[in-house]
Amino acid sequence: MEPNRSPDVVVAKVIAWTPDGAVRYLDQTRLPREEVFREARSIDDTVEAIRTLRIRGAPLIGIGAAMGLVAAATLEARGGRLTSEWLDNAIARLTDARPTAVNLAWAMQRMRRVGVEALETTSDPARLVGVLRAEAQRIWDEDAAMCRAIGQVGNRLIPDGATVMTHCNAGALATGGIGTALAGIYVAHELGKRVRVLSCETRPLRQGARLTAWELSCAGVPVTSVVDSVAASLMRKGEVDLVVTGADRVAANGDVANKIGTYGLAVLAKAHAIPFYVAIPRSTIDLSCASGDDIPIEQRSADEVDAAPGADVYNPAFDVTPASYVHGIFTDRGLVEPPYEKTIRSIFD
Amino acid sequence: MEPNRSPDVVVAKVIAWTPDGAVRYLDQTRLPREEVFREARSIDDTVEAIRTLRIRGAPLIGIGAAMGLVAAATLEARGGRLTSEWLDNAIARLTDARPTAVNLAWAMQRMRRVGVEALETTSDPARLVGVLRAEAQRIWDEDAAMCRAIGQVGNRLIPDGATVMTHCNAGALATGGIGTALAGIYVAHELGKRVRVLSCETRPLRQGARLTAWELSCAGVPVTSVVDSVAASLMRKGEVDLVVTGADRVAANGDVANKIGTYGLAVLAKAHAIPFYVAIPRSTIDLSCASGDDIPIEQRSADEVDAAPGADVYNPAFDVTPASYVHGIFTDRGLVEPPYEKTIRSIFD
Repeated sequence: MEPNRSPDVVVAKVIAWTPDGAVRYLDQTRLPREEVFREARSIDDTVEAIRTLRIRGAPLIGIGAAMGLVAAATLEARGGRLTSEWLDNAIARLTDARPTAVNLAWAMQRMRRVGVEALETTSDPARLVGVLRAEAQRIWDEDAAMCRAIGQVGNRLIPDGATVMTHCNAGALATGGIGTALAGIYVAHELGKRVRVLSCETRPLRQGARLTAWELSCAGVPVTSVVDSVAASLMRKGEVDLVVTGADRVAANGDVANKIGTYGLAVLAKAHAIPFYVAIPRSTIDLSCASGDDIPIEQRSADEVDAAPGADVYNPAFDVTPASYVHGIFTDRGLVEPPYEKTIRSIFD
Repeated sequence: MEPNRSPDVVVAKVIAWTPDGAVRYLDQTRLPREEVFREARSIDDTVEAIRTLRIRGAPLIGIGAAMGLVAAATLEARGGRLTSEWLDNAIARLTDARPTAVNLAWAMQRMRRVGVEALETTSDPARLVGVLRAEAQRIWDEDAAMCRAIGQVGNRLIPDGATVMTHCNAGALATGGIGTALAGIYVAHELGKRVRVLSCETRPLRQGARLTAWELSCAGVPVTSVVDSVAASLMRKGEVDLVVTGADRVAANGDVANKIGTYGLAVLAKAHAIPFYVAIPRSTIDLSCASGDDIPIEQRSADEVDAAPGADVYNPAFDVTPASYVHGIFTDRGLVEPPYEKTIRSIFD
């Protein structure tokens, strides 16, 4: 069986509207063994889906939260009213579902702005839902377009025959399109370049082994799965041409918050003279954070690590990679290079 | 309940003789949830126990193989004969059980030497078994003594209040005594120093989270379990004072083969100006290997990694850390420091 040579088969599964306005999503905690689809209707449903990582990946969290807000607003509107109090409360709860990814807060601010604006001119709940739904769809469509644009940038940096190491999952499963870190790989693959991926497992939740390996094989891209601690020796053997990861938040100075382990890969890449890149849509940049020190780092449950009883567990979900380790940032506005203090702001011009 | 303040409670469980001359051992694949004890009687039993990592840790593999040889010889002797062919075959099979740790080959060579020597003067199987058993016991006792000696060296390098990071399990569960990497920690703890351990999980088989965390808590040493990829960010935060690991083989030039992930920790330690030490008994040094390039690296099954179907898996059990990253080697003959080409040979004088 010839594998499908496009990530579109994955993109179509990740998230969708149901005919009655709920959110249908692929439960990513069940991958790769099972493709289980779930529906979110209430704010509780969506908050739980995001907290439990059934919906995950910084851009997809923003999209999922926006769509989940629409689904809940659709239900609420059937009661005949949709108040600004309801909207504020719903948005506050969704925003708090996870703290580190800035895309979530960014998407919720967009939804709030259009909601508040619409409420000034109408109190018709159906019209309000329509306005909210249009904005959620825009967030999604824009993200898909940004993924493509990021992919064009990434592709230029990926030579024919390259082996790309990545961490966690910044692919179609993490976005509304073909991903961020994986976007360049997909574009290169579509253009017929031979490109191979080394996917780091990403303990404790194994997004690399479960999700990145799954979606790349679905799309026909050769992928080799390794435990996180194999990275250094592969670099020493000269088997890694570049490292590309996504990010959950990028500060104004170019510091990068991403999945725990990213900082270690960046240090190892530098020690082996391998370029380390980050791939993000604009929405991941948070100019209100001057540096990585301002980014809140989510601590998750000890259960995820499953250590011997009697031992303490330290389980941060993210780490911060200082800008000095970042060779360049693939964005939907092109390649951003140091000095980031100057270049990052320019992409918003 | 006050935790036991000594590793002796662990040491006593690891391996023992049964009254009828078989080997009783703690099945380390079942830790930390269950303490399951098994018996090895035949060569098959011992080879399987070593291959499946029920008995693991470079020094303990040597001890377990020597004791397993005695157990099988005891059975064989009941048939009235114990030939040099039987001995050669048994030793060859045990030696092949795992390729990377040199202690196994070293222990088997010792057993072979005493067996061949005894066969020159006697064909009495009971006497032969007695000679083999005495040598196996010597290998074990010497290892326990070497662990203590290594612990004295390690203790000198561990200041009061220190946080020590370690990888995999080079503790009581890996040796015939109080361990190698953990020996200095145990000695420091016994002397009343406040010492804390950061135990890296060690994917894929999780010896750090399962075994190191288990034995340190049994002995009352504060231990925090982290996934492997947390190490870099802890180093960046200044939370690691030194890194100490064991080794499966050390080459004549000081290159170190140890559990996959050790090389990465060594590179990260250097990048953060944290000293990286290796702790070994003499039997781990293989002067016949000029450098790490000569050390065979065991590749293990893809099943251990459990990646998405469709993905390849690369699963080396060990990596090689060049001597230039190794600050010093704790041995039973004292602290060995660079230049290793000169210093390593001197401990055999």
